[in-house]
Amino acid sequence: LPHHKPRPPGGLRRHHVDGIVEEEIEFVAQPSKFGSLWPLPQKVQISQVSFKLTGFSFNIVDAKQSSAGPSCALLQDAYRRYYEYMFGNAKRSGKNKSRRAGPTDLTELQVWITSADSDCDAYPSVKSDESYELTVDQPFAVLKAPKVWGALHGDLFDFGKDTLLLYLLIPVFPPWFTQETMAMNKINVFHWHIVDEPSFPYMSKTFPQLSQQGAFHPYTHVYTPADVKMVIEFARLRGIRVVAEFDTPGHTQSWGKGQKDLLTPCYSGSKLSGSFGPVNPILNTTYTFMTQFFKEVSTVFPDGYVHLGGDEVDFNCWKSNPNITKFMDQQGFGRDYSKLESFYIQRLLDIVATTNKGYMVWQEVFDNGVKLKPDTVVHVWIGGRYNDEMSKVTAAGYPTLLSAPWYLDYISYAQDWQNYYKVEPLSFNGTDAQKKLVIGGEACLWGEYVDSTNVTPRLWPRASAVAERLWSSKDVRDVNDAYNRLSGHRCRMVERGIPAEPLFTSYCPREYRGV
Amino acid sequence: LPHHKPRPPGGLRRHHVDGIVEEEIEFVAQPSKFGSLWPLPQKVQISQVSFKLTGFSFNIVDAKQSSAGPSCALLQDAYRRYYEYMFGNAKRSGKNKSRRAGPTDLTELQVWITSADSDCDAYPSVKSDESYELTVDQPFAVLKAPKVWGALHGDLFDFGKDTLLLYLLIPVFPPWFTQETMAMNKINVFHWHIVDEPSFPYMSKTFPQLSQQGAFHPYTHVYTPADVKMVIEFARLRGIRVVAEFDTPGHTQSWGKGQKDLLTPCYSGSKLSGSFGPVNPILNTTYTFMTQFFKEVSTVFPDGYVHLGGDEVDFNCWKSNPNITKFMDQQGFGRDYSKLESFYIQRLLDIVATTNKGYMVWQEVFDNGVKLKPDTVVHVWIGGRYNDEMSKVTAAGYPTLLSAPWYLDYISYAQDWQNYYKVEPLSFNGTDAQKKLVIGGEACLWGEYVDSTNVTPRLWPRASAVAERLWSSKDVRDVNDAYNRLSGHRCRMVERGIPAEPLFTSYCPREYRGV
Repeated sequence: LPHHKPRPPGGLRRHHVDGIVEEEIEFVAQPSKFGSLWPLPQKVQISQVSFKLTGFSFNIVDAKQSSAGPSCALLQDAYRRYYEYMFGNAKRSGKNKSRRAGPTDLTELQVWITSADSDCDAYPSVKSDESYELTVDQPFAVLKAPKVWGALHGDLFDFGKDTLLLYLLIPVFPPWFTQETMAMNKINVFHWHIVDEPSFPYMSKTFPQLSQQGAFHPYTHVYTPADVKMVIEFARLRGIRVVAEFDTPGHTQSWGKGQKDLLTPCYSGSKLSGSFGPVNPILNTTYTFMTQFFKEVSTVFPDGYVHLGGDEVDFNCWKSNPNITKFMDQQGFGRDYSKLESFYIQRLLDIVATTNKGYMVWQEVFDNGVKLKPDTVVHVWIGGRYNDEMSKVTAAGYPTLLSAPWYLDYISYAQDWQNYYKVEPLSFNGTDAQKKLVIGGEACLWGEYVDSTNVTPRLWPRASAVAERLWSSKDVRDVNDAYNRLSGHRCRMVERGIPAEPLFTSYCPREYRGV
Repeated sequence: LPHHKPRPPGGLRRHHVDGIVEEEIEFVAQPSKFGSLWPLPQKVQISQVSFKLTGFSFNIVDAKQSSAGPSCALLQDAYRRYYEYMFGNAKRSGKNKSRRAGPTDLTELQVWITSADSDCDAYPSVKSDESYELTVDQPFAVLKAPKVWGALHGDLFDFGKDTLLLYLLIPVFPPWFTQETMAMNKINVFHWHIVDEPSFPYMSKTFPQLSQQGAFHPYTHVYTPADVKMVIEFARLRGIRVVAEFDTPGHTQSWGKGQKDLLTPCYSGSKLSGSFGPVNPILNTTYTFMTQFFKEVSTVFPDGYVHLGGDEVDFNCWKSNPNITKFMDQQGFGRDYSKLESFYIQRLLDIVATTNKGYMVWQEVFDNGVKLKPDTVVHVWIGGRYNDEMSKVTAAGYPTLLSAPWYLDYISYAQDWQNYYKVEPLSFNGTDAQKKLVIGGEACLWGEYVDSTNVTPRLWPRASAVAERLWSSKDVRDVNDAYNRLSGHRCRMVERGIPAEPLFTSYCPREYRGV
C-alpha cells in the first residue's frame, strides 16, 4: 500500500508483520496552499487580501437582490447551521465578546440566489443546478448561486462549482448523522437501501404486515412513516436527494414473512422443502402486490427515481420448483432462468413506469438483456472488470452510475482512502458521448459488519476521498496535497462532533470526546 | 475467511467482489446452552433450578464471614457498578416498582472474601489470586473468592475461575472507557504504551520539558500526574494492573525534542545531517538521564513491572556517526551494532533493577543476546514464525508473553475475530515446563490508524475473542457456540453504552444511540 512521504528518521513500528509492507509517511500533515478545502472546487483563485473571521462581528444575510429571503426556511436553517459550525466553540468560550469589528474583519456573507425561482421549497433532483460562486475580496463576501442548492455548498470553507453526483448507500439505522456529514462533504444523494434479506424495517401503510412480521423487531427496528418523512426533509434542507431502493426479485427473504405467496416455495425432490427463494414470478398475485406497493412508494418518496435492485438472483429455488418449470415450458424459456428473471423485471418496470418515476437497477438487469426505458440508470457494482461493463452500458446508451471501486465495507490495513481517491471513473474505453452518460459515482457501505456502533468512523473520511474524486476536477490527483487537506478536513469533522477516523498518526486540536 | 453456518436460502449479497469469497452464516445467533457467558469460565455446571432477577428485590451484600466489609471501597464501588449494569435500564423505566419479591426471585448476592487479607487496598499483581466460585442454587446466591480480584470477575453473568493474563496495549487517549470494557471482558492488565516516536504525552515531574517540547500539544495532549493517578486507580478498582512502557533506545524521536543530547546525531557523509537516531548509547549523560527518569517512573507506577521496549532499533544513524564508530572500535564490537544495542540495554536493565522493578522487553532484546534477569518477561510480537520464538525463549527459561497473533490494528473484511479465537498459544514445541513459562497473551492495538474516534468499535468484540482464548479452558474452541455467545455479549456491551461492533448482520434489543 503506497504512502506519501519518505521515512522519517527512526520510522514507525511493527509494519512488516505477516506480509504487510508499510511505506512511510510524515507524522503531521504539511500545510497545503488550499488549506483544508475539501472537496476541492473546480476553480480556486487565492487573492492577496485576507480577512479575519470572528463570530461576534460576522453575519450571514440574504443579499438585497436575492430571490430567496427570510421566508426561505431552508436557507435560514443553513445559516444557523454554518454559523454554529464556524463559531460554536468560540461562542461557548465567550472570547472576544467585547471586541469591535476592525478593518480587516470579514463582517458579512451576502447570499444571493440569482434565478427567479430559488427552489427553496422544492426537492433536489438529478437536474438541480448546484453551482455557486463565492467571492471574498472585501469585508462583504458574496455567495452567488442560481438556486438554493448551490448556496448550501458555498460555505466559507471553499469556493467552486460542479454538478457530479455522489450516491451513498447505507442500510443502518438511524441515518441522521450520516446525512449531516454527507452535506459537509458535498455528497448529494442518499441511496437508502431500506430493506434487505434479513429485515424489512420499512413500515408500509398498505401492507403493514411486511414490517410487523419481517423487521428485526416491529417497534424498535422499523422506520415509521414519520421517520421516513423526517429523513427526507432533513436531507432536503441539506440539498440531498433520497433515492429509496426496494430490491426484488432476489434478497427478499424478509418480504416473505409478512406477505403470503410472494416468494417461490423451494422443493427438495418432489416435496416442498419449507424454504423460499426469490419473488415468485409466475403468480398474478405477485404483480397485484407490486402494483399496490410501488404506488405507495411513489407517493412516500418524492424523488424522481426509485431503485429497483435486481441483483444476485439465485436460480436454485426456481429450478427446484415444478410449477416454475411448467411455466418456463409454456413461455418457451427452455432452461434459461435469466429469461424468467427478465420476464419478472420487465413487468415490474412497466408497473413502476405507471407511477411516473424513473428507475435505477443493478447491472445484472442490463446484463440479462431486460428491455429498459432509455433513461434507466444502470448501477455498476461488480468489481474487477468494471471498466468493460461501463463501456458496454454506455455503448447501449444508458446513463450509468459507478460503485464498483468504492465498496467501503471492504476494509484493509492502512490508508485505503488513497485507493478510492486514485480511481478515474471515466477511464473506460468509449466515446465522449459515452463518457457523458456517467451521471456520477456512489460509495457503498453495506451493513453486514456495520451498524450504529461503527458506521461513522468507517465512513469518514474514507467516503470523503470518493467525494473529492467525484466533485473536483479530474486533474486534482495529488495524493500528498490531498493527504494534507484531508487531514484538516478530518479534524474539522471531529470538531463538529463527528467521529471521523484518523488517516495516520496525528492529532486534532480538539479531539473527539465520545466513547 | 471461514464462517460458521450453511448459506440460508437467498443468501447475502455482493460478497464475491475482488477476490473476496465470503462463506455464509445465519442472520441471527442461535441460543447457546451457556447463554451469553463470555469469556466462558473454566467450569460451569447448570442446575435445574432457575431464579428471576429484578432490581427492586435484589441486593448485593457482604457475606457475614467475609474479610472485606462496607469499608472496602473497591467492593462497594463494584456492587454499584454491577447493579447499574444489571438494572440501570429497568430502574430508569420505573417498571415493577411496586412488585414484591416472589419465591422464585433471586434476592441477594452474598460476596464472601475468604482469605484473611482481602487485598482491598492493594494493587493487583502478576501473582494475584483471581479465582472465584459463584453458586446460584437458592434465593441467596453466594460468590466466594480468596481475594477481591476474584470477586470482581464473579458477576452474575458467568461462573468459573482462572488466572491467565491478558494484556492490552493501546496508545490512545483517554483510556477510561477502554478499561471499563476490559473489566467486562476479564482483561486484567493494561499495557500502557504511553510514549512513542511522534509524541511524548507523559508529563514528567523530573523532566517537564519532555512533554512540553515532545507532546503533540503541551496542554491538550498530555497525561498529567493526576491523569496518570486516575488511570491507575480506575484500573485498580476493576482488578486491572497498569504496566507502563517507556520504549528505548529506538522509537524515541519525541524524547529528543525536550532532552538535548539524548539522541544520536546522524551524519550525512562527514557532516551532521540535522536528524537524529536512537538514544545515544556512548554518552554518560544518557545513563544519568535514564537513572533519574526511571527512578521517577518506578514511583509513579505502582506495578511490579515496567516495560522497557527495545524493539526495532534502526542502526543506520549509528552507522553514520563517527563517534559511535570510534566507540565501537574501543569496545571491540567490530561492526556488530546489535552489540552496541546490547551494551545500552544491559546498562538500562541494571539501572531499572535498582528500582526493584521487574521488567518486560520486546523479543529483539532476547534475540540479540542481552543478559537478562531470570524473571524478565520476553514479549513475543513478530508475526509468522512466532512458535519458533516461543520455543527458544522458553527453552532459555524466560517467562514469556505472546502478542504476535493478536495485533488488532491489522484489520480485514469479515469475521477476523475467528482468527484470534482459533489461536492456541501453547502449540509451540516445548516441554511442560516450557509451556508453564507462558504467563499470558496480549492483544495489541497500535495507534497509527486509531484514536478516540474509532478505538472502541475496533477493539470490541475483537479483543473479547482474545479474552476467551486466554481466560477459558483450552478445550473451549467451538466457533459456532462462540459466535452465539459472543453475539449476546456484544449486545450486552452495547446496552452498557459501549459501541462494540457487530459480528455480522444482526441487531441488538437496545442499539447504540451515539454517533
